[in-house]
Parts: sequence; C-alpha cells; structure tokens
Amino acid sequence: MRGRGCAPGSCGRHKAGGAQAALLIVAMLRLPGLLLLLSLGSVCCPPGALPALPLASRRGPPGRAQPRPAALYQTRYFPQKIDHFGFDQDLTFQQRYLVADQHWRKDNGSILFYTGNEGDITWFCNNTGFMWDVAEELNAMLIFAEHRYYGESLPFGNKSYSDSKHLNYLTSEQALADFAILIQHLKETIPGALNAPVIAIGGSYGGMLAAWFRMKYPHVVVGALAASAPIWQFEDLVPCGIFYGIVTNDFKKNGQCCSESILNSWGAINRVSSTDEGLKWLSSAFHFCSPLKSKQDVAVLKAWLSETWVNLAMVNYPYKADFLQPLPAWPIQVVCKFLKNPKLPDKLLLQNVFQAANVYYNYSGAASCLNTSQSATGNLGLTGWYYQACTEMVMPMCTDGVNDMFEPRKWNFHVFSEECFKLWKVKPRPSWIPSVYGGKNISSHSNIIFR
Amino acid sequence: MRGRGCAPGSCGRHKAGGAQAALLIVAMLRLPGLLLLLSLGSVCCPPGALPALPLASRRGPPGRAQPRPAALYQTRYFPQKIDHFGFDQDLTFQQRYLVADQHWRKDNGSILFYTGNEGDITWFCNNTGFMWDVAEELNAMLIFAEHRYYGESLPFGNKSYSDSKHLNYLTSEQALADFAILIQHLKETIPGALNAPVIAIGGSYGGMLAAWFRMKYPHVVVGALAASAPIWQFEDLVPCGIFYGIVTNDFKKNGQCCSESILNSWGAINRVSSTDEGLKWLSSAFHFCSPLKSKQDVAVLKAWLSETWVNLAMVNYPYKADFLQPLPAWPIQVVCKFLKNPKLPDKLLLQNVFQAANVYYNYSGAASCLNTSQSATGNLGLTGWYYQACTEMVMPMCTDGVNDMFEPRKWNFHVFSEECFKLWKVKPRPSWIPSVYGGKNISSHSNIIFR
Repeated sequence: MRGRGCAPGSCGRHKAGGAQAALLIVAMLRLPGLLLLLSLGSVCCPPGALPALPLASRRGPPGRAQPRPAALYQTRYFPQKIDHFGFDQDLTFQQRYLVADQHWRKDNGSILFYTGNEGDITWFCNNTGFMWDVAEELNAMLIFAEHRYYGESLPFGNKSYSDSKHLNYLTSEQALADFAILIQHLKETIPGALNAPVIAIGGSYGGMLAAWFRMKYPHVVVGALAASAPIWQFEDLVPCGIFYGIVTNDFKKNGQCCSESILNSWGAINRVSSTDEGLKWLSSAFHFCSPLKSKQDVAVLKAWLSETWVNLAMVNYPYKADFLQPLPAWPIQVVCKFLKNPKLPDKLLLQNVFQAANVYYNYSGAASCLNTSQSATGNLGLTGWYYQACTEMVMPMCTDGVNDMFEPRKWNFHVFSEECFKLWKVKPRPSWIPSVYGGKNISSHSNIIFR
Repeated sequence: MRGRGCAPGSCGRHKAGGAQAALLIVAMLRLPGLLLLLSLGSVCCPPGALPALPLASRRGPPGRAQPRPAALYQTRYFPQKIDHFGFDQDLTFQQRYLVADQHWRKDNGSILFYTGNEGDITWFCNNTGFMWDVAEELNAMLIFAEHRYYGESLPFGNKSYSDSKHLNYLTSEQALADFAILIQHLKETIPGALNAPVIAIGGSYGGMLAAWFRMKYPHVVVGALAASAPIWQFEDLVPCGIFYGIVTNDFKKNGQCCSESILNSWGAINRVSSTDEGLKWLSSAFHFCSPLKSKQDVAVLKAWLSETWVNLAMVNYPYKADFLQPLPAWPIQVVCKFLKNPKLPDKLLLQNVFQAANVYYNYSGAASCLNTSQSATGNLGLTGWYYQACTEMVMPMCTDGVNDMFEPRKWNFHVFSEECFKLWKVKPRPSWIPSVYGGKNISSHSNIIFR
C-alpha cells in the first residue's frame, strides 16, 4: 500500500465485552456441566514484557477505569512452600493476596479469583474493574492473588533475584500450585466458602494462568475468564509476526497514513542519526533528558518507540484511563492525528512522531523531558518477566516491515538463548509450555472463556 | 464372629475383567468424545511398598501369565530433563523404554503406553499380559516407559539415592512430565505415529499415574486404564483401615476360620516368643535361615507375615503365576487349606501358619530355609518407594484386629513424619496429592477406566 494515498480507517480495537463475559460466568456458576471453550476476541500479547490488559469496566465513573480505594479490600498473607514440586527445599514464603468481601454471601455466593501476573497485585486489583462491577450481581468475594517473585511475594526477600538458584522457583507451574493451595486454604477457613464455586480471572499472562489453572486444576475452579491470553504465542503455533501485525492494524484503522508514518520513521531516524549534528537534533526534537550519543543509543530510541506503539495498542481503551500511563479515550486515534503525512521530509516526519509519542508519555503535561529507559508503569516486574521469558515463556516475535509497521527483525532463537544464558545462566525451553499445557490441542477442557 | 464356628466362604477377589476393559478402550479410540469415568472393580493397594497388579491375561498358555521373550520388544533410551519444573538444574538422564511394534499399523494403529511404576520396567512389561493380548486387535504399538529412579533410569547413576538433594526429582509430577515428553518424541519420530491415539495403562501406583496422566495431560493421551489404582488412599478420603479390611475379606471368602486363624496367630507368636525356648522353637518351626534372637526380630517376623498375607491378596490370580513369587492358581484358597482351626493351641496353630506362609515362599520347593528380609520379587524398587511414601505418597493405613485380621496399629502421622525425616531428611506432605490431583473431585475428567 506504500506509495499510494492513505485511506481513512475506523478506530479502536478493544470493545467492552464485559457484559457478555459476565453472562457466561453466570452460566458457568449456575450450570456446572456447561461445556465452553470460547473465544470472544483476539488473542494478543506484547513482545518482551507482558503487561496485563484490564477487563473493561461496565460501571463506575463514566468514561474511565476506577482505581479502588485501599479500604475496599484487606491485605493478607499466606505461607506457601517455595518448592511445591520437590522436597529437598522445604522453606515457605509469604504470598500476598487481597480480599474484598463487601458483596460476599455465605449461602449462595461465588468467588472470583484473580490469578496475578507479573506485577504488584494492588495494581491489578485497581485495574480490573470487571471483577468489581460484577461482584454484587454474583454475591461474590473477590480475591486477588499475587504471583510469586512479584510485588511483596518474594520467596527469598531481596535475594530472590540474586542468581539462577534463587530464581529457580519462578515458574507458571509453581504459581498455579500457589493459587490452588491458597484457594484450598480459603475454602477451609472462610465460613460458607467450602462449596462456593470459584472462577479464575486474569489478563495477558494472568489470562494464560487463568486458562491453564482451569486446565490443570479443574477440581479447584469451575471455570476461567482468560482476557487477552496469548496461549498460542509459543513455538510455531502462530506465525511469529502475528502480534506486531495486530498492533499495526490498530494504527491502520485510524488511517493508513498513521501506520505508514511510523514505518517510514525508522529510515528517517537512521538517516538523521548518522551524523553528530543529527544526533543532537534528535535529542532536542524528542526532548530527551539525556542526549543520544551513539549508535547504541539510537537502537534504544527505536526500541523505546516500538514499545510505545505496542503499549498504545494494548491500552487503546474507549475511555480515559491510566493503566500504563495516563491517557485519553481511544489514545491511538489521538496519536494518529499527528501522523497523517508519511511522505514528509525526515525531520518534519520525526517532529510529528515526537508529538505522537508525547501523547503517551506526557498527556498530563507534567514531564519536562522524556526518558527512553521508562515506557510503562513501574508496577510491572520487568526483571521477573525477562527471566520467565528466558526459561518457560519463550514467545517468538518477528517483524518484516511489510505486514507490519516495524523495522524488520527475524526471530533468532539461538541468539535469544545465548543472551538468556549470559544474563541468567539459564537456557530457555521453547517447547515446554506447549508440551505441558497442550498448545492448540485443548478441546478436552471446558468452561474457559477467551476474550 | 470370633468364638463361633467358622463359615465356609467363596473364594477369590480378582476376576478377569480384561475383555470388558478392552471393549472400553476400543470405544475410547473410536469415539474420542466419549465421556467415561468408570470403576470396574475395587480400588486397593498395599501398605508400604506398592507392587503393581498385572492386568489379567486373556490369552496365552492356559492357566498362567506369560513372560515375554526379550526378542519381542526393543529397548531404547531417551534423554529427559532431570528437572522439568526448574531451570537451574539443566542436566539430562537416559530414560529406558521398551517398544513392541509387531502389530503396529501406521495407517490406523493406536499406541498403548504403560506408565511405569516403582520397579524395573522389563518386569512390568513381562507381567502386563493385557497389553500383549489386545495389541493385534488394536493394531497397537506397545510402549513400556520406565519410571525415573527405578530400573536403569537413574538420573544421577549410582548417586541417585545418595541424599535428599539427589532424590529431589523423584516425584509423580516429574514422572508424568517424562511420559508426556517421551510420547511427544515418539510421535514426532515414528512414521505414522503423529496422529495415533495413545492410551495410558498402568497398575497400582502405575495405575494412579495412568489416571493422573489423563487428568493432567489430556492432550497427550485420549484415555487411561487405571488398574487397582488407589487414588483415594490419601488423607481421610477413605478410612485408614479399608485396605487391610479388603485383604482380610479375601481370606474370609475362603472360610471364616482362615482369617480367624491369622488373627489368633499374633497372640500365639507373642506368647511363644516370650521365652528363649519359644524363640528357638519359632525359628525352627518357621525354618528361618537366621534364628530369632530378640523382641525386635519378633516384630520383624510379624511384619513379614503381615506382608505375606497382603501380597497373597494382591496376587490371588485365578491362574498359576509368578509375579511376586511362583504361586498356584487362587493361592489364598491353597493357603487357607492349612488354616481351618483357629482354636488350636499356640504351637499347633503356628505350625499351620508356617505351612500357609510356605505356600507363598516355597511353592517351588526349592528353598531350604526362609528369610524375613525378603517378601517379594527383587524387581521392585522398595527404597525409591519408601522415599516417595515419605514425600508425596503418604497413604494412611491402620488396623484394629476387629474389622481385619491384623494386630491393631493406629495411623500416626507424627511418628511417620519423624521416621521419614530421620531416614531421608525430608518431611512428608500428606495433603499435596489430593491438592494437585483433585482427591474425589474428579468428575470433570473423562475417559478414565478404573478397574
């Protein structure tokens, strides 16, 4: 399509599917035999770090997600075995979890259980409006369980990330076992909870965990709502370019020119940054707190921009929100207003790209300069996720600049594996997740809603 | 019933259910959507060591199970990760497995996969006649996979049992992962196997593994045949006396006097062994290779006799066989011929008890003396099983001498746990197996035949 005029596009990717999901959850709670394995939306995920997508809020202040005051939930801790799958290491750690039982009814209530992902659980608690929205209708107790190695749930305190020996228990299997044991404890100790049906809920990696939890522990949860859960983003189950293609489409929907502007920006950056004067100009044009000084810095700039577009696609909510950053409703639509002419000379194009990126980084207007080392909320545990990506969560990603708007980059497992070993002294096992959770062969499972 | 005359009983516990099981397997192979969770027989298991119960042979030389000549199968090895659930330890070991493909047909064949239990896999291969019997009918390839830490499949060679660090990877979860990865490898490397349906088959602990394998890896096996698999012998899912009660009933069926004779024998042993002369007499009457010298030796004698009665119940086949020991058809019937008068004076009663035990230990007539340190085939990996019982496989057992024919012995977890720690430096986790595999709450699973 490059070289032709840019067609206008419709906008937005995330439709509020909360009402539909709530209906299906009610069905799972009332008809235990119901067999469901549904997909209500696209399965997607980000490239390296994997922030969770909050489930759309149906109620609350119009037009934005609603952070929950801490008074609405209690913070509790439960001692978990550090190693569920071996007996040589018999230590425990305190897993944090949050409980909101305002709407809980002993006689016929249900339990909605958030399968925490790679971050501080209070952040997911505050950004999963769907659970708060349906709590009253379902007489539900809300539980938000923190994933081990994130937030306060550190198996070895501040030594948890010190080496591969201490990181050895950071796996999805251990996390699922934590959830199962915690639910068992809650059922045994909360009056009336013993026979209450439990639904697992999660987004992104937390969505994968919710789905896998139902697959592996169907005796613990009667069903799962897995939002934006990329359970097929492993090995060659889907083409490695699918994720960046979806991100690109989100921008295309706001005008062909928008994605083309971004596509053309990479060449423009390469050309402008090839001289010292150009580097200086770029640093100034992007209002960077620290000036760009080398080719390495330019590579970081491009990675940071790529992540910005990806993050925008992930939080392209129809309402004002501040999940990864404070943003207006339909932020891609706002961003694309600055990217209507992909054919501009390099510097003019890059000035527009800065304006576009600035929507994401400085919507509040409070930032005096931008920083390429930060692209999302600090609530995410990026270090932990990188370890997980280097062990179990090997999710091949690639771009080609034809079916997407990014600089071409092949997926090279060998190089990836070597980087992992350098960083963590571990070797990734790319086929393990499909082996243990079934890949696409999941038809014997039931009551999982993918949306 | 004690004190009254002894009623004659019918005999035998194990009915050949092979034909029925084969029909159900055919149904699972041809109707993939079929939902089954059946019990075709009693669930039972032995107290400490847990030998596998072979599935009744439908064909073969009349009247006995048929050992398979080694030429009928090939022995192969597959490198498995020592730790599937962690990445710090990245070593592999060679898992042994046996392949018999005489009847395998690429176009429409199936794969019968024996989920090896605590012993040398060639022994299970030779004693699972059912699989050999149905291979032709199902155009099936037979695979017998050895359980890690048994037979030749030692993760750390002769250091595998050296301490709790080396034993750390001896768990059912690791074994199931081995099976899943092995099947994946077979499907990828054997022409025509990729889409062949796989049925898991196992007996006793191997039967539990077969059932759990279908529960946890339904994408790998379309169904499971779990023979004599005591998946509820954990925590308080069943009364702790149930197993010894079933054993007692097997003897009662051959005459009330039979079980009463055994019940009365414990007091007789206690009385006779209370003097040095009595100890000497006992040593001679039981033809022991080494004479009894202490109270400790008497305790060992009683444990050895208990195990003898238990083993007889487990191998009470309707045909001559030599699974644990060479035995006649319906061995309990033969044993009980010596135990018709429970009211005899102590020494006369114990002489009869010796005759009865001698059926089990010396049916061939080759033994010149008996040894209380050996009660079954050496093919079982008893050390490994004791470790498993001290970690995951905590199966509460008790006797009361009222509902069973054994000396009363309460289940005392505390004492058991302390013994485990003394022996292995590990602490048993009695609730883990029900937590991870669901206990009695397994109705969401399908295609598992319990028999």
